[in-house]
Amino acid sequence: MSTPPRAPGGFPVVGVIGGGQLARMCAGPAAELSITLAVLAEAPDAAAALVTPFAPVGDHTDVATVRDFARHCDVVTFDHEHVPSDVLEALVADGVAVHPTPQALRHAQDKLVMRRALTGAGVPCPRWAAARSEADVVAFGDETGWPLVVKTPRGGYDGKGVLVADTVDDVRDWLAAAAERDEELLLEEAVPFVRELAVLLARSPSGQAAAWPVVETVQTDGICTEVIAPAPDLAPEAAEAATLVGLDIAAALGVTGVMAVELFELADGSVVVNELAMRPHNSGHWSMDGAVTGQFEQHLRAVLDLPLGSPRAREPWTVMGNVLGGEPTDLYPTYRHLMARDPELKVHLYGKGVRPGRKIGHVNVSGTDLTDLRERARHAADYIQGVIVE
Amino acid sequence: MSTPPRAPGGFPVVGVIGGGQLARMCAGPAAELSITLAVLAEAPDAAAALVTPFAPVGDHTDVATVRDFARHCDVVTFDHEHVPSDVLEALVADGVAVHPTPQALRHAQDKLVMRRALTGAGVPCPRWAAARSEADVVAFGDETGWPLVVKTPRGGYDGKGVLVADTVDDVRDWLAAAAERDEELLLEEAVPFVRELAVLLARSPSGQAAAWPVVETVQTDGICTEVIAPAPDLAPEAAEAATLVGLDIAAALGVTGVMAVELFELADGSVVVNELAMRPHNSGHWSMDGAVTGQFEQHLRAVLDLPLGSPRAREPWTVMGNVLGGEPTDLYPTYRHLMARDPELKVHLYGKGVRPGRKIGHVNVSGTDLTDLRERARHAADYIQGVIVE
Repeated sequence: MSTPPRAPGGFPVVGVIGGGQLARMCAGPAAELSITLAVLAEAPDAAAALVTPFAPVGDHTDVATVRDFARHCDVVTFDHEHVPSDVLEALVADGVAVHPTPQALRHAQDKLVMRRALTGAGVPCPRWAAARSEADVVAFGDETGWPLVVKTPRGGYDGKGVLVADTVDDVRDWLAAAAERDEELLLEEAVPFVRELAVLLARSPSGQAAAWPVVETVQTDGICTEVIAPAPDLAPEAAEAATLVGLDIAAALGVTGVMAVELFELADGSVVVNELAMRPHNSGHWSMDGAVTGQFEQHLRAVLDLPLGSPRAREPWTVMGNVLGGEPTDLYPTYRHLMARDPELKVHLYGKGVRPGRKIGHVNVSGTDLTDLRERARHAADYIQGVIVE
Repeated sequence: MSTPPRAPGGFPVVGVIGGGQLARMCAGPAAELSITLAVLAEAPDAAAALVTPFAPVGDHTDVATVRDFARHCDVVTFDHEHVPSDVLEALVADGVAVHPTPQALRHAQDKLVMRRALTGAGVPCPRWAAARSEADVVAFGDETGWPLVVKTPRGGYDGKGVLVADTVDDVRDWLAAAAERDEELLLEEAVPFVRELAVLLARSPSGQAAAWPVVETVQTDGICTEVIAPAPDLAPEAAEAATLVGLDIAAALGVTGVMAVELFELADGSVVVNELAMRPHNSGHWSMDGAVTGQFEQHLRAVLDLPLGSPRAREPWTVMGNVLGGEPTDLYPTYRHLMARDPELKVHLYGKGVRPGRKIGHVNVSGTDLTDLRERARHAADYIQGVIVE
């Protein structure tokens, strides 16, 4: 297909760079709103390419390829944060509407840029420092205590690019590798958090913002495995404070589209910012079934500068369970079993081949009994992964 | 694209004959479940073809075309009821799984076949008769009273193919036309109903059935303009009785997939069957946002003989307003305005060009205040149609 199939009536084309599950999950809402989705995909069988009529395959690091793709689009947005700055700047120079903007996106691409900006804006962060040398590391560790958290500023996700260092010896190889890339490392204190929360919001180019209820996220081996919406036992003032942190960041960084702010909740109820993502995010998958406006519809509305939809939760609780690849590769009989066991289960699969630990789907379940919902979401995710067999 | 793009993991391809909005609205749920949707479309810009990678254009009345399409599919189902019996029988003879089956579908294709079967099964119907002559019409009218309702058994929808006759003179032309086609007309008494209800349910080849809450439908000029879920002030026993009528019909006719039964509610609270549709139906559009399992997901599950999802309503009330084509053709600025006015509004547009009276979309809105919800759904639909300007 040589051009995206536009619907009559003046409806726009939203181009997504990257054909992963986040692009894929925009397809349903785009169809509902009569918006045409275009995807610059990594491969013909990329998750989003399987469900999108216009999904040319191309390299997102190649300026000419991305420019050619953007020509078909009224606005360009992202499935991931790995598009190089020079490619983004070339689009902007061409007059393409890019959301989030390259200036905003830098904060999600580089954790040092993010820490500097948030600290400058007065947003609560863990204590942090940039390090080039062993002396930098030792000085920071001696100040904040050991162990400390070491991060590569760029390219990390799902626990990758993160190291917990007990001594400077643990950091030596990473320092050498960073030096070769002429980069610094980010050092952060190991925050004694009581749990992890996330604020998900959308902000439009006009400056309208809408935040979903604050959620609790549960990580296992650095990967989000469960999200509870809303976060249980979170005092209304604490939820409001966390939401304001998110809204402050969005305004300070000029965010457009959906943004997730991962937070550590401390013993005194206050929060500090852990990570940022400027795109629909795992912590918001619950909203697809649990909220009036899901995060993928909201992202489309935000990047198009359409009025934002209501983030109201439709049910008292929604629990999301991430499905990671396990032993079983033949998933169709698996979900058949789950559907029979739990008719309320919402199964979302990404059309991806199974590889151990790969995010291949998620389940949502909503209702009034949180303990029961958590058990059911956990069971379903474990069953698809083959961790349990009935 | 020469074959439908299957997701890895053993997931099936569901082929839909017809590329209208009902096929289109299957696309989102299919992607979520990793099911590949294939569409035999009327044109490259058919509503469903705009959002489906595999949507060959072909004539649904041509056996060779439909056979070639079905070759790619694990199951074949329908966007409409106009596929000729011989085409369907050819597929079945080829060993293709067709749902609903040709035997069941006949009851939705021919209203006389439907009346005979329902009466035979003891399902409450208006008094009816088949007519070939003026004498038949006069005899029936004298028995049940005038006016009476005259229907062409085949091809009618949205008030087309229906005539209210005050005298036999009104029926003369229709009798002649029917005689030319060697068909009978269906005569029905004009039922003194107090309102119209609909039962929507799904039934799988294994015989599992699930019914959504009974809804009230409001028709204007023979076209459904509003649906209220659940039907207000319907006693639980009356709702149960209406649901049982639907379940009885589904079992008696061997229905597979989603079926809608349109009912007349009489003054004594009992119901009689008006019409049947064996596919997702306008009266079920509310379920896309208002129920745990929407009708398009449920139809996919049913025709694949997957366990059915919960039809539970997520909110106390959901109101659906149909959007018909009016004066405005440039709909994008229109819905922008509506989104700003009502962030809770769920807008569904079908990617179709505007023609006066054509169904081009619908809106859903859910909550606790029914009067308010009805006003908002009505406003949104009227605004898109250009009936009101603010």
